Amino acid sequence: MAAELTAHQLIAQHRPTLDQALEAIRTRAYWSPHPEHPKAYGENGSLDAAAGKAAFDALLGSRLDLGQPGTDDWVGGETSPYGIELGVTYPHADVDTLLPAMRAGQRAWRDAGAEMRAVVCLEILKRISDRTHEFAHAVMHTSGQAFMMAFQAGGPHAQDRGLEAVAYAYVEQVRTPDNAEWTKPQGKRDPLALTKRFTPVPRGVALVIGCNTFPTWNGYPGLFASLATGNAVLVKPHPRAVLPLALTVQVAREVLAEAGFDPNLVALAAERAGEGIAKTLATRPEIRIIDYTGSTGFGDWLEANARQAQVYTEKAGVNTVLVESTDNYKGMLSNLAFSLSLYSGQMCTTPQNLLIPRDGIRTEEGPRSYDEVVADLARSVGGLLGDDARANGLLGAIVNPDVKARLEAAAGLGEVALASREIANPEFPDAVVRTPVIVKLDGAKPDDQAAFMNECFGPVSFAVAVDSAADAVALLRRTISSKGAMTVGAYTTSEEVEEAVQEACLEECAQLSLNLTGGVYVNQTAAFSDFHGSGGNPAANAALCDGAFVANRFRVVEIRKEA
Amino acid sequence: MAAELTAHQLIAQHRPTLDQALEAIRTRAYWSPHPEHPKAYGENGSLDAAAGKAAFDALLGSRLDLGQPGTDDWVGGETSPYGIELGVTYPHADVDTLLPAMRAGQRAWRDAGAEMRAVVCLEILKRISDRTHEFAHAVMHTSGQAFMMAFQAGGPHAQDRGLEAVAYAYVEQVRTPDNAEWTKPQGKRDPLALTKRFTPVPRGVALVIGCNTFPTWNGYPGLFASLATGNAVLVKPHPRAVLPLALTVQVAREVLAEAGFDPNLVALAAERAGEGIAKTLATRPEIRIIDYTGSTGFGDWLEANARQAQVYTEKAGVNTVLVESTDNYKGMLSNLAFSLSLYSGQMCTTPQNLLIPRDGIRTEEGPRSYDEVVADLARSVGGLLGDDARANGLLGAIVNPDVKARLEAAAGLGEVALASREIANPEFPDAVVRTPVIVKLDGAKPDDQAAFMNECFGPVSFAVAVDSAADAVALLRRTISSKGAMTVGAYTTSEEVEEAVQEACLEECAQLSLNLTGGVYVNQTAAFSDFHGSGGNPAANAALCDGAFVANRFRVVEIRKEA
Repeated sequence: MAAELTAHQLIAQHRPTLDQALEAIRTRAYWSPHPEHPKAYGENGSLDAAAGKAAFDALLGSRLDLGQPGTDDWVGGETSPYGIELGVTYPHADVDTLLPAMRAGQRAWRDAGAEMRAVVCLEILKRISDRTHEFAHAVMHTSGQAFMMAFQAGGPHAQDRGLEAVAYAYVEQVRTPDNAEWTKPQGKRDPLALTKRFTPVPRGVALVIGCNTFPTWNGYPGLFASLATGNAVLVKPHPRAVLPLALTVQVAREVLAEAGFDPNLVALAAERAGEGIAKTLATRPEIRIIDYTGSTGFGDWLEANARQAQVYTEKAGVNTVLVESTDNYKGMLSNLAFSLSLYSGQMCTTPQNLLIPRDGIRTEEGPRSYDEVVADLARSVGGLLGDDARANGLLGAIVNPDVKARLEAAAGLGEVALASREIANPEFPDAVVRTPVIVKLDGAKPDDQAAFMNECFGPVSFAVAVDSAADAVALLRRTISSKGAMTVGAYTTSEEVEEAVQEACLEECAQLSLNLTGGVYVNQTAAFSDFHGSGGNPAANAALCDGAFVANRFRVVEIRKEA
Repeated sequence: MAAELTAHQLIAQHRPTLDQALEAIRTRAYWSPHPEHPKAYGENGSLDAAAGKAAFDALLGSRLDLGQPGTDDWVGGETSPYGIELGVTYPHADVDTLLPAMRAGQRAWRDAGAEMRAVVCLEILKRISDRTHEFAHAVMHTSGQAFMMAFQAGGPHAQDRGLEAVAYAYVEQVRTPDNAEWTKPQGKRDPLALTKRFTPVPRGVALVIGCNTFPTWNGYPGLFASLATGNAVLVKPHPRAVLPLALTVQVAREVLAEAGFDPNLVALAAERAGEGIAKTLATRPEIRIIDYTGSTGFGDWLEANARQAQVYTEKAGVNTVLVESTDNYKGMLSNLAFSLSLYSGQMCTTPQNLLIPRDGIRTEEGPRSYDEVVADLARSVGGLLGDDARANGLLGAIVNPDVKARLEAAAGLGEVALASREIANPEFPDAVVRTPVIVKLDGAKPDDQAAFMNECFGPVSFAVAVDSAADAVALLRRTISSKGAMTVGAYTTSEEVEEAVQEACLEECAQLSLNLTGGVYVNQTAAFSDFHGSGGNPAANAALCDGAFVANRFRVVEIRKEA
């Protein structure tokens, strides 16, 4: 069968984008080819809002047949955090059939070379981008994100992270030339001369283990990094968030087939309720790479047990913001209020512990006591979420009952500075929508330490009273080194404190946002510019995205002969 | 204290060399700044042969005081494979004192930046290069290599591998800029603008666990990769091969101090006989990187147990040469004879299994039966080593009694095609010098398989009769996937067989040398051009040297604030 998409077409279409991505990761200036605004879609083959919604609606109750070999059953059962039953069923795989089938196409995919693999990946991303409106609904109704966030984080931002991974993967593979002529002088004798050929080869089958909250954003980097480096990729979505990754697999399979490759290079492993296939898959000898986002417990298990694979994990951390002083008190409060509220704090980057000196802080409006700062922050969050429509648009829904239970329990951990409030969602009456709780704790009390030194995933923040800025920096160091952190924030006008916080982050290896008071938030990172995680503290063993994220997904085989 | 070596001086002196190294790893053409010929030394501050020998002689019986903190004793006791007692003693460290001291200088080393670290490393290599003659004797009298090999492999070739690692480490760190301005348009509103600073930060203290046979060649890549990426490096030499690495540590400490850095960034961990400190060190929380060359057993132990560290291992493999046909029979025989003989086969890259069809092979001189090929190869080895002086210069000495015992036992495994011969060394009467043994085995017999499917390190080769070329390729695949291989060789004039062998090496991830008949040997790799190992089969989890070897030795911390 002749390929419908030729290398020439794909390279002509996507090489300029790849080159721009390569330039972006070198300069780390702002760049994205994926529009953030919903109204930007609807032309040149992309679905507009209505078409995207219709496409999503058509999926409900359907069987998503991916044409995978070894399909022995159909499984499904996702319930949206907004209350609707998705009713989509997916292929359940006999992995003893599926895994060998996934390996069958690897030779051709390897031989296609780094550039062809990159542009095929870009074509997959382009088709996903065209369906951003459809994906937005799929992400919204699996993660519980509000529509606008599901649209942006689950659409263009996720596509950016995928493209970034393709760019890193490409540049890593072409660091070594395809061929070399090696001629070593031998004095008066003839030189020694060898012809060498270098081929990037895949490790095998890569496994992506998806998460509930950001199925595409957290899934795309590993998926595209592994695929672009020549590996087949098996996607094991979170049972509550199958649809966005199943659609992704569907698009990837279509593009691979049209480009003349085996569609089984990308496949889905959906599971029955309670089946727990991640452990089984993760230790299969065919699986040589694993990308995982989720709990620390299972991440640690993977690192310890999936010894046959390269394991990239993003687990959990305890994110800290140190509040010492500011010259923009209102800006600080509103920036923090937004960070605590966005997606009900259900981001791995949401601040949890706010360290505030018990003697208070300096502001441009004069000193503020610890109690005043906490009360002002509570008021700021309350104001941000005072209007129910705006609150719904910012908070989204609580993703699962565990988060709700943690939120309810948090109120018993200390004095509640801001109580969580139940918000009705008129469009989705069954959605569980809650505003964040802020609890006051004392950094010197062992019982309180036990509470704030563990991750409490969800809309829960602790206003931790500390003795001094130095005490706060020491606690920050302890928190990062023992629990990890995806993000650290700090507010200070003191050069000395800024220096101490920076040094703590450099030594404990955490990403730091300083004095954010405007429209950028500590819990948001931009692809091509910001690193997500550091890979150097217990929260994650990898960062999105750097050379280390891609360099060990392939190896280079050299074949040399005399010239 | 003002630094004696300023950044300006070091950059002016070494940046051109670094740039040439960067170009070499991009093109992988021949390049080396380190002369291979002994007579090239003696000018511009380098030691000539006599001065190098005198410097080595002056070391014998001395105490090598490195000025390390926490030195609680003096240990030593190396006996040269050539029979002389070195009598050098080294500091024994109280690691609870030494490890904290090694961390004290890390902040300044981190803040110096990638370029300064690179040129400091190049200055260390330059001073080692100047003392190549001295190092040659140190390597000879610890590894048992013959002088000329100790000179080249232990001198310029090892220095090349160290420089190559510095080049990879440098380029990896500067892929991310030091600073970035990020400006995101917001339609009619003001753009979002952030200033970002990116800092490569070290993982912590790196541990280099040296080997007996190539203390510098196998030690330098990890040592320099870790140091150049900002880590402190603790060098734990093999108890029988301390001196070359102790001298290396001494030079590194001198240069670091002269450049204004803490000399404790590099330290030695020599041990008492039977102390076995590698296990203790490898699991210390301060140790975050480990480079190891040695047995599969301990390498596997490190990978399983040193979970707090990034572990780079070169273990053991079963190297195979497939002999199917040739158009240069004599060239093939003499090339193979040299590979089997060099350093008494005590290289991790020496071929062990020669797979030869039992029906014989095609040559430009007509067909040769299996028995003829083996007999001709035995004759070729015999001829190469017929002259005792030449044999001594090629074979060196047997490095330890284990190798001698394996050699003696090998003769009982099958029909001996070439018996090992004892050779007297007139200069060093106590040296154990032996020619290789070649044993005939049958690839179809289970007992024989049990023999040739395990690494038999030393001057032992097995001429394995196989049913066909296809059978040989299948056996090659099984061998690589189950036992690993540092090298694979093949001789064939058949396009079909060449294709099959190449595909086996690409799929099983092993480095292949095809039809070598001249002055390049399957067991030799050249820095800047050849990869040593693939990192993709059980023989080693890393290759020398590529991006994956350096990318995870540091992390990048981002500090961002509003512009």
